[in-house]
Amino acid sequence: MRALSFELVGHDGKSRVGRAVTRHGEFDTPAFMPVGTQGTVKGLMPDQLATTGAQCILANTYHLMLRPGERVVAELGDLHAFMGWPGAILTDSGGFQVFSLADINQISNDGVTFKSHIDGSMHQLTPARSMEVQNALGADIIMAFDQCPPGDAPLPDQEVAVRRTLDWAEKCRAAHQRPDDQSLFGIVQGGTDHRLRAMCAEKLMGMDFPGYAVGGLAVGEGFEGMCDVLDFVTPMLPEDRPRYLMGVGFPRDIVVGVAAGIDMFDCVMPTRNGRNAYAFTAEGALRLRNSRFASDNLPIESGCDCYACEKFSRGAIRHFFSAGEMLGPILLSLHNVRFYQRLMGDIRRAIREQRFEEFVRNDPRSRLGPAENLEEIV
Amino acid sequence: MRALSFELVGHDGKSRVGRAVTRHGEFDTPAFMPVGTQGTVKGLMPDQLATTGAQCILANTYHLMLRPGERVVAELGDLHAFMGWPGAILTDSGGFQVFSLADINQISNDGVTFKSHIDGSMHQLTPARSMEVQNALGADIIMAFDQCPPGDAPLPDQEVAVRRTLDWAEKCRAAHQRPDDQSLFGIVQGGTDHRLRAMCAEKLMGMDFPGYAVGGLAVGEGFEGMCDVLDFVTPMLPEDRPRYLMGVGFPRDIVVGVAAGIDMFDCVMPTRNGRNAYAFTAEGALRLRNSRFASDNLPIESGCDCYACEKFSRGAIRHFFSAGEMLGPILLSLHNVRFYQRLMGDIRRAIREQRFEEFVRNDPRSRLGPAENLEEIV
Repeated sequence: MRALSFELVGHDGKSRVGRAVTRHGEFDTPAFMPVGTQGTVKGLMPDQLATTGAQCILANTYHLMLRPGERVVAELGDLHAFMGWPGAILTDSGGFQVFSLADINQISNDGVTFKSHIDGSMHQLTPARSMEVQNALGADIIMAFDQCPPGDAPLPDQEVAVRRTLDWAEKCRAAHQRPDDQSLFGIVQGGTDHRLRAMCAEKLMGMDFPGYAVGGLAVGEGFEGMCDVLDFVTPMLPEDRPRYLMGVGFPRDIVVGVAAGIDMFDCVMPTRNGRNAYAFTAEGALRLRNSRFASDNLPIESGCDCYACEKFSRGAIRHFFSAGEMLGPILLSLHNVRFYQRLMGDIRRAIREQRFEEFVRNDPRSRLGPAENLEEIV
Repeated sequence: MRALSFELVGHDGKSRVGRAVTRHGEFDTPAFMPVGTQGTVKGLMPDQLATTGAQCILANTYHLMLRPGERVVAELGDLHAFMGWPGAILTDSGGFQVFSLADINQISNDGVTFKSHIDGSMHQLTPARSMEVQNALGADIIMAFDQCPPGDAPLPDQEVAVRRTLDWAEKCRAAHQRPDDQSLFGIVQGGTDHRLRAMCAEKLMGMDFPGYAVGGLAVGEGFEGMCDVLDFVTPMLPEDRPRYLMGVGFPRDIVVGVAAGIDMFDCVMPTRNGRNAYAFTAEGALRLRNSRFASDNLPIESGCDCYACEKFSRGAIRHFFSAGEMLGPILLSLHNVRFYQRLMGDIRRAIREQRFEEFVRNDPRSRLGPAENLEEIV
């Protein structure tokens, strides 16, 4: 058995429905992967998470290498045992977090030297080190170490980042020690510049990765900019490999990603918003701290089949937030992740039934974006 | 159907095994009721709580009358709907909390006037008001409003408290509007004074309550003092009614309570300690923040069948606490509640099999008390 097999089972325009098989279980695409940054999708037990329909989850290399350290995770089995999640897991490379969270000491062609945001200790991330950490963690899909500049970075910076990303991708491929267990994806950078994106995609395809990610989006380039890049670059990627849009996003963003041919997504948005008392519904976000919900006997979202909607009223959930009870964040995290998984299920069904365009036109979730007052967080 | 029926199914010495039936489900006795102070057993969803074997849970009248208010709970269905818990629920009277948490303005023979600990607003608790609140909340078992002085209060104070407790019990019985749905228990006070305890028990029995609680213990009288009162007063209570030892306690305390003939217990100890990274095991408490657990691949407690022990290593749980992840408190709350429910199941089995004395002598849990460094909290 290969580390990853991927089969397309349906198309509608550029949108695709598929199935990915890893050594730790399968997942249907287009897939949304909830984020378990530090080894747990915040507030949710793995069995609750499974009830949402999530099949593949994400964990962050940067956080886990700093705490508890990848060797501790390996001693405790691997990331699957550590997280209590027997299904598929993807780890990012640490690239995005080191550029956005760490106190960077030096960036060179070799990698990044930085101070831990936890205890100030000095660390280095290089392609080889990222592979060492990800090999020790043992996720089913691992990511090449890349450089992700801000969306408004000038073209010369984007060019440097693409050159490094390509060099580091080659080095990651060479350093990867467990290709039979873990599938290594390359990441296309290049900001909003078509020429850079095309060049980056082409060179990466020459390295023959089993999957490709589109990175460097949702980093300030704006919705139109993201749509433009997605429409341009996604169709260039090999038809027979999974395509992953990293760190995205609002329901609206996922819909346009799928329309462009993307298969995988991840974002902290459902859990982060849930902890902050924002509930996703097809009609927009509800801020459940609002006093207008105090005696509201309705579920969070009528028709939702999650445990929070089946068992609790908005009024009770509002009370849990007012009283500082953990159950508030727990219930809304569960609902929001289920909301995203229902969205993905409905998207897959629409594609299989050749009516994805109608779905985009008519389903209100296709328009759910930042106007809804949700917190946009990466 | 009556609000409560209670059947004894086994004895061993003074210890009893029974079954209580309420309008919202049954529970086996001796029973341990996890505490859901503000309408949620902290950190646990009701379905997780049910997996621990908990059959009856407790909620606090004092907290719920102040926030969200009993009328809000009633508008949202009742306490069962509000908490998402279809099984049996008991509410206390507010008496204990008003004396321990509130900023008391005045205590009289009528009741207590106090400032809310939440917003400083003025409130009154009287026997009639406690019944009004508890009738609106709709728990299956409700408690008479009592006065609970500290364990070291001088005898004249204890005498006043008993006189009031008896007067208020009578008033509660008269004010109780839903005797067909909710079973009202009387509470025996009297500190460590045998004469007062006996007088209080006798007068209450004259009022013919469907169940009796022993209050005013674990409030500073010490373990020997508690054992002495329990051994003295418990056998006085009617054989055919459930007997409830309020707010107790350590596993050791539960074992001596059962030995004296107690049927019901409640305490925040499993959840409060769990949130603070203390895990109960038969051999003593583990403080899972300790660095010695960092690479420990064992479950919290070998042989435990809870989800936390089945899916997670001590090392992973230690990491969740270090990283400030909700999953740490969630997993230890679950384990600790399951620990208590396993204790109760083993106690019931030992009584049914006529070997409870041997259980007390040989089972290490019979000695688990404050020496184990657990946090003693009421």
